[in-house]
Amino acid sequence: MRDMRSSKRDGGNPLAMSSRAFASGRSAARRPASALERWLLGEMLRSLGNPSVALVAWDGQSVTCQGGGQPQIRLHLRDPGALFRLALDPEFQFGELYSCGRVEVEGDLVALIASIQAAQRIQRGTRSRLMSRIHPPRSNLLTKSPGNIHHHYDIGNDFYRLWLDQQLLYTCAYFPTPSIGLEQAQVDKMDHVCRKLRLQPGESVVEAGCGWGALALHMARAYGVRVRAYNLSREQIAYARQRARSEGLDSRVEFVEADYRAIEGQYDVFVSVGMLEHVGRRHYRDLGAVIDRCIGKQGRGLLHSIGADYSAPLNPWIEHRIFPGAYPPTLGEMMEVLEPAGLSVLDVENLRLHYAKTLEHWLARYEAATDRVEAMFGRVFVRAWRLYLAGSLAAFRCGKLQLFQVLFQRHGDSHIPWTRAYLYAAGDEPWKTATS
Amino acid sequence: MRDMRSSKRDGGNPLAMSSRAFASGRSAARRPASALERWLLGEMLRSLGNPSVALVAWDGQSVTCQGGGQPQIRLHLRDPGALFRLALDPEFQFGELYSCGRVEVEGDLVALIASIQAAQRIQRGTRSRLMSRIHPPRSNLLTKSPGNIHHHYDIGNDFYRLWLDQQLLYTCAYFPTPSIGLEQAQVDKMDHVCRKLRLQPGESVVEAGCGWGALALHMARAYGVRVRAYNLSREQIAYARQRARSEGLDSRVEFVEADYRAIEGQYDVFVSVGMLEHVGRRHYRDLGAVIDRCIGKQGRGLLHSIGADYSAPLNPWIEHRIFPGAYPPTLGEMMEVLEPAGLSVLDVENLRLHYAKTLEHWLARYEAATDRVEAMFGRVFVRAWRLYLAGSLAAFRCGKLQLFQVLFQRHGDSHIPWTRAYLYAAGDEPWKTATS
Repeated sequence: MRDMRSSKRDGGNPLAMSSRAFASGRSAARRPASALERWLLGEMLRSLGNPSVALVAWDGQSVTCQGGGQPQIRLHLRDPGALFRLALDPEFQFGELYSCGRVEVEGDLVALIASIQAAQRIQRGTRSRLMSRIHPPRSNLLTKSPGNIHHHYDIGNDFYRLWLDQQLLYTCAYFPTPSIGLEQAQVDKMDHVCRKLRLQPGESVVEAGCGWGALALHMARAYGVRVRAYNLSREQIAYARQRARSEGLDSRVEFVEADYRAIEGQYDVFVSVGMLEHVGRRHYRDLGAVIDRCIGKQGRGLLHSIGADYSAPLNPWIEHRIFPGAYPPTLGEMMEVLEPAGLSVLDVENLRLHYAKTLEHWLARYEAATDRVEAMFGRVFVRAWRLYLAGSLAAFRCGKLQLFQVLFQRHGDSHIPWTRAYLYAAGDEPWKTATS
Repeated sequence: MRDMRSSKRDGGNPLAMSSRAFASGRSAARRPASALERWLLGEMLRSLGNPSVALVAWDGQSVTCQGGGQPQIRLHLRDPGALFRLALDPEFQFGELYSCGRVEVEGDLVALIASIQAAQRIQRGTRSRLMSRIHPPRSNLLTKSPGNIHHHYDIGNDFYRLWLDQQLLYTCAYFPTPSIGLEQAQVDKMDHVCRKLRLQPGESVVEAGCGWGALALHMARAYGVRVRAYNLSREQIAYARQRARSEGLDSRVEFVEADYRAIEGQYDVFVSVGMLEHVGRRHYRDLGAVIDRCIGKQGRGLLHSIGADYSAPLNPWIEHRIFPGAYPPTLGEMMEVLEPAGLSVLDVENLRLHYAKTLEHWLARYEAATDRVEAMFGRVFVRAWRLYLAGSLAAFRCGKLQLFQVLFQRHGDSHIPWTRAYLYAAGDEPWKTATS
């Protein structure tokens, strides 16, 4: 497993793990589980909060929680080492062991994780603090952020193209009804954000963390604004610039390969969709100061971020393997960005179920493309990203994660909509603003 | 002024100040302002942030800020003592001196306060902390809250009937368009709250801080729910019970004269409109614990409260004379109620301009009834409440105060609306709920 830990040494492709690490081909341990091991299985089930899951040892012996009937989900532990690792540090080791096939899930992976997350809710507190000591989240200092961002976003546009929508939006979509498709829901998300921001032709917008540039280009194309968009990911910036040129939008959209702390100039609007998760709580005031200095007297903005109902670190395996430095803030913690800057919150919307729906689409597309993913990065990577997507879906379904869209305005500015009805009105009527 | 300070000794009618204290009948000081006093006038103007206001001494000499032209608002100081008091402790003494006529405003009182509030924004911090030492806010311990509440709400239903709407709603109304009247806007506010809460016939609701009972009765009448409503104000509870009986709703709405900490039982819905301001920040966790224990597994609720963009004590004069123990929290501080209880925020709406509009109506009605108010409580009271209403209107207009409606749900419960569109849909279509 050590080669997985030192993922930075692999350069831009940290999860391109060697398939040598993959264990399902190995013959499982033959010896029967000992009395101690059987006891440990039972203890582990209890420590997980007694979910409706059977834990199955390498010899076929299983434990279930009492009175729960025969669970539809069975978690197979392939060898005694997997059992001990999982018992000692389940939140990190489950991901490690699942990725390399030493743990296998029979049944619905999403349902398994959701039931464990729901059952574990009460254990927040001491355990979380202990785990964050063992697996401290990575720093987001100006010198560290580029590495954290390359880790995740620069593993290849071709990979993301396999399972994201056509425009490569890698953030929560907005589904006016649950049945619309992902492509439309991502366009609707961009419109929902633009309408909340009441973009007017000719205005200037700065975007912090612009991904592959879809929102910046959409704002310029559909709302007639000028956009400067910042991102640390070289591959994403290159892709976005190419797209701007091919759409003839490069005179109105500028993509800058830099950190949000490098933002300069004055704009009417600040927008950030899916970046705050990577900012790190220690730097919220820095972000607030950037917003404060870059928006004008009638400035306004929107922060769209994964969040949480209560303060807790991200799952350490996700933080280490998938999203280094990431943290889902509570709404109260998000206010640490805006309140010191005296910005005024107009509207907060929680789109948790929309992220669950988005992830359903991503996971289904991903599963349909695993052959190609395996050809690119190998079997361990396939399983690791399946677990990440399934775990995220479970977290949004069961409420472990939230999605907050926070709309704000310069303190004291009354050029704000009278009600939110315009967001839901048919047609594109001009935004009604009112001063009292 | 000492008789105004010790207002609790007057029993339930603390602002029924003696008209002996009223000074405008006194002959103003005759002697000319000294060089020191003229300098002090200039200093005071600067310390107020150089608003576009003329400060006029008792001898007719005036100061204005440089280059501001001739201000339309003139603040007259009737005697040297008024100048020194105002210079030493403007935030408290302005209210004291205005109430008894030693300070007079020529021009628009609301505009005067708004311009000072807007100009003073930058002074938050040290000065606020100093002021809160000089005028410490009152405690909201279980033993203190009844006194604080009687102070404001038990000064007579007849008084409030003069300037509130017919149903005596003493909280921010909701105006779908700015031009609708106050009566309708208060009904619309109640419906806005009930629709956010997706009340279903037969459900049970607990209301903390129910005023004169209008919302509790409306919920029972229009949404078919059972309500238990708590309030510390004896006069309000008596009025509400009488109204429930006369409308035949007393079998479905129970009014309890008790603090929110006394709430017992289990309910589908928790609602509190305009009480959090009186809870005191030290007791937010208590309130969260009450909500946590009283709502069921699919429980939900709404907190409606005056708030602020940044942390600062309420104006000390308002806190002492009008609203003892009151504090307008930031949105981040409001989360101190919900996050420790693990409740999930679905939606936050800022209705600042709606409170400004509500106060415009109240102030206009109040001004039309000042003869009757003076007959009840005297001239000092008339001026004190005018200042309170005008100052509140100014504070909502200029953004010193906000109005947050926070909708929340039990953590992890997915019986929530898919979008907020239903709030703005025509007709009363059933709430669309969705589980992912």
